[in-house]
Amino acid sequence: MENIKENENTKFSEIQELLQGNDTEALLAAFQELPTVEVADILAELEEEEIIRYLSLFDIEDQGRIYTDFDFDLQLELFSLINRRHFAQIFINMPSELRADLYQELDIEQQLELLPFLDKKTREDVIHLSSYPPETAGGIMSTDFATVKSNMTVEQAIEKVRRDAPSKKMVYYVYVVDENMKMQGFVTLKDLILEDSQTKVEDVLHTNYAFAEVNEDRESVAGKVEKYDLVAIPVLNPLGQLVGIVRHDEALEVIRAEHTEDFEKFMGIVPDADGLTYLETTAFQHFKKRIVWIASLAAVGVISGIIVHSYENALEQLIILALYMPMMADTGGNAGSQAATVVVRAIALGQISVSNWFSIIFKEMRVSLLLALCLGLLAYAKVLFLSWETDIPEKFSLTMIAFVISLALSIQVVTSTLIGAGLPLIVRRLGGDPAVAASPAITTVVDITGLLIYFGLATVFFDLK
Amino acid sequence: MENIKENENTKFSEIQELLQGNDTEALLAAFQELPTVEVADILAELEEEEIIRYLSLFDIEDQGRIYTDFDFDLQLELFSLINRRHFAQIFINMPSELRADLYQELDIEQQLELLPFLDKKTREDVIHLSSYPPETAGGIMSTDFATVKSNMTVEQAIEKVRRDAPSKKMVYYVYVVDENMKMQGFVTLKDLILEDSQTKVEDVLHTNYAFAEVNEDRESVAGKVEKYDLVAIPVLNPLGQLVGIVRHDEALEVIRAEHTEDFEKFMGIVPDADGLTYLETTAFQHFKKRIVWIASLAAVGVISGIIVHSYENALEQLIILALYMPMMADTGGNAGSQAATVVVRAIALGQISVSNWFSIIFKEMRVSLLLALCLGLLAYAKVLFLSWETDIPEKFSLTMIAFVISLALSIQVVTSTLIGAGLPLIVRRLGGDPAVAASPAITTVVDITGLLIYFGLATVFFDLK
Repeated sequence: MENIKENENTKFSEIQELLQGNDTEALLAAFQELPTVEVADILAELEEEEIIRYLSLFDIEDQGRIYTDFDFDLQLELFSLINRRHFAQIFINMPSELRADLYQELDIEQQLELLPFLDKKTREDVIHLSSYPPETAGGIMSTDFATVKSNMTVEQAIEKVRRDAPSKKMVYYVYVVDENMKMQGFVTLKDLILEDSQTKVEDVLHTNYAFAEVNEDRESVAGKVEKYDLVAIPVLNPLGQLVGIVRHDEALEVIRAEHTEDFEKFMGIVPDADGLTYLETTAFQHFKKRIVWIASLAAVGVISGIIVHSYENALEQLIILALYMPMMADTGGNAGSQAATVVVRAIALGQISVSNWFSIIFKEMRVSLLLALCLGLLAYAKVLFLSWETDIPEKFSLTMIAFVISLALSIQVVTSTLIGAGLPLIVRRLGGDPAVAASPAITTVVDITGLLIYFGLATVFFDLK
Repeated sequence: MENIKENENTKFSEIQELLQGNDTEALLAAFQELPTVEVADILAELEEEEIIRYLSLFDIEDQGRIYTDFDFDLQLELFSLINRRHFAQIFINMPSELRADLYQELDIEQQLELLPFLDKKTREDVIHLSSYPPETAGGIMSTDFATVKSNMTVEQAIEKVRRDAPSKKMVYYVYVVDENMKMQGFVTLKDLILEDSQTKVEDVLHTNYAFAEVNEDRESVAGKVEKYDLVAIPVLNPLGQLVGIVRHDEALEVIRAEHTEDFEKFMGIVPDADGLTYLETTAFQHFKKRIVWIASLAAVGVISGIIVHSYENALEQLIILALYMPMMADTGGNAGSQAATVVVRAIALGQISVSNWFSIIFKEMRVSLLLALCLGLLAYAKVLFLSWETDIPEKFSLTMIAFVISLALSIQVVTSTLIGAGLPLIVRRLGGDPAVAASPAITTVVDITGLLIYFGLATVFFDLK
């Protein structure tokens, strides 16, 4: 592999050198050895005027590709610097769904400046694609697909694909439609190649295809692409007409975004729809994303406060109880969060559903009993170790106190685990996203139950009041 | 869309009816209207003998596909029930990487029973693919790819692809190799279709391609498929020879698995390599996955215990302090976990790296000051509200106590946020996975810092000893 890698590094430093010099032809040749996404990475490091100068060296199709691979921010900056006529050509050569995304980010004046320079087809396509909500199949679909008619021969179909497939089109699946664009099925490019040239398309047509509806949630669309291992899934409107396709790479992006959203939700962070990166988001925006939950939980914490408050006398009589309050809260929070993580993830992966609730709770019950046994013993040892020289009132013994504390902890581990596993199931049952039964929420809930268990047991065993 | 959906439902209930009856021909016809993954879903619900009986109705290629779509468990069960000769045919018709996965799950006797029934090519392929570690490109790659030579004409290349492409092969990218299988580049099937039939392959060859090394980590391979928007990525050995491809659907699976792993790690759950689903994992295995962290944290909790212990006198003098200890721990834990979530996620998405540490810490500093202001005010109000009738020693005033507690909480929010954001960066800097700076770990750390801040401030302000 080393020779190949070296080769790559040489290419890279060669380009860095050429960028310093003036031999644009050699530079272009070197650039053309690289995938366009890497060209974009290199250009993005330069001054904007330089980017435009180098970009102009490529043929217009590659300009479209390279521009597409730039960050969204850079795209917007370059938009205002490139002259409209030139920009329109770049724009026409972008993948349809990405240029629609860009178009939506422009302000009205910019949109109106751009439109006159576009050909009719592109103009209509952009306006059409921009009209779908971004969270739906329509919002992420591309119109770069190829169609044939079912009464064509394989030879005619290949000829049609050749004729109207500019380089950005996905032609690995060729969609078969009638004269009203109603989808009848699809053939793969491979089918066309393998079949005899005189066979009719209708004889090799796959009619058992998966599809998305144009208003379908994009997560569900991505799930279908994944389930059926598709390169692209057709998107149909309510009349059964083919209006677009969602490619595998779009689906992957949706799954990534969903991943981040789940992760954030689970930590009680309000996900933002703008898709800004960490550093692009201002401190105040970060603050707004986090304060909602954290302040709500602090408010709920008043309940814990009231509970501790009501046991103030008990605490005064047996101050040692105060020492182990944090242990109850932490261990309960950890056990509950772990159970919730496992259950939320298993739901997201489709491994379990609410109808399995009994098996889940039964399994978590057994897991938590094992955890409780271990952690209870640990807590018993901990109390004896930490508090052996603590002054305790005559009528109580340290071993008895250690026993009660570790018993309370064991019960806390069991209830926390069950709450952690049960809360996402309940939220799901009520139609919500199980990830909102987030870790901070569970921590707060088990805090309250933990205090009740702790002081409840202590007052009973030691007859405090 | 309704007509289409209705259509699907009809198909489904039709099959359920046919499964009751005896008209196997009609049943087969109905099955052939569905994607194989859905046929597999329906069959999986039946008794095993029934599954085998219905499976045998399909042609052998479809049997391979349907069997592939069964759960791993069901695959293994069926393996022992289907006769070896029949099974070998199914096996030969499975995608190469998935049949290698299955082969690795068989025990030695089963492997030896199967091998004699396989043709030489399949036998060698399975043994070869099974030899790579599952975490590498080699472990997830498929050998179902098509190759041509660079001196062929486009027409000859298409002919070669037609000749040796059985239906399971990925032919959308056709790889160009020399007589030693050394990779020279690739052409897409689309290139071949669009080009003139007499053009030489070497004239349309893409030499600027992304590739994976056979020992490369599978996450890195999946990342390349994503970055370059590929249908498949070629896998090369150290000699530059083409040994396999990793398809987009495998890459997606790797990304999903990585997602789960991150999520679990972040909650201090030991991820398992077996890929068992939630319900397949026994309670004891679940227990083992969780106990490590939770017990370690409980052990570290001894430190919190020692701290509270050392301030026992202060607590006795001012029992009201015990009431607000849980609030310090919870709020700090929440603030720290949120910051860690945001940073870990931004690192995973490649939005930030360790070199940005200053901007990150500076941003988190500002976020945390805003959070501290809000939460501090809230805490002040909370203390006044909850404790207005608490008995406090003459020399202290409630407003003063509320002020000190809310000041301590504000400082706790700032330090927790910085610890939460900084810990993943430090772990990353030391070469570890930032996700291990998990939420439970942060909760435990900020617990300790929180207690120090709390009692530190209280003893200074109130001159406790």
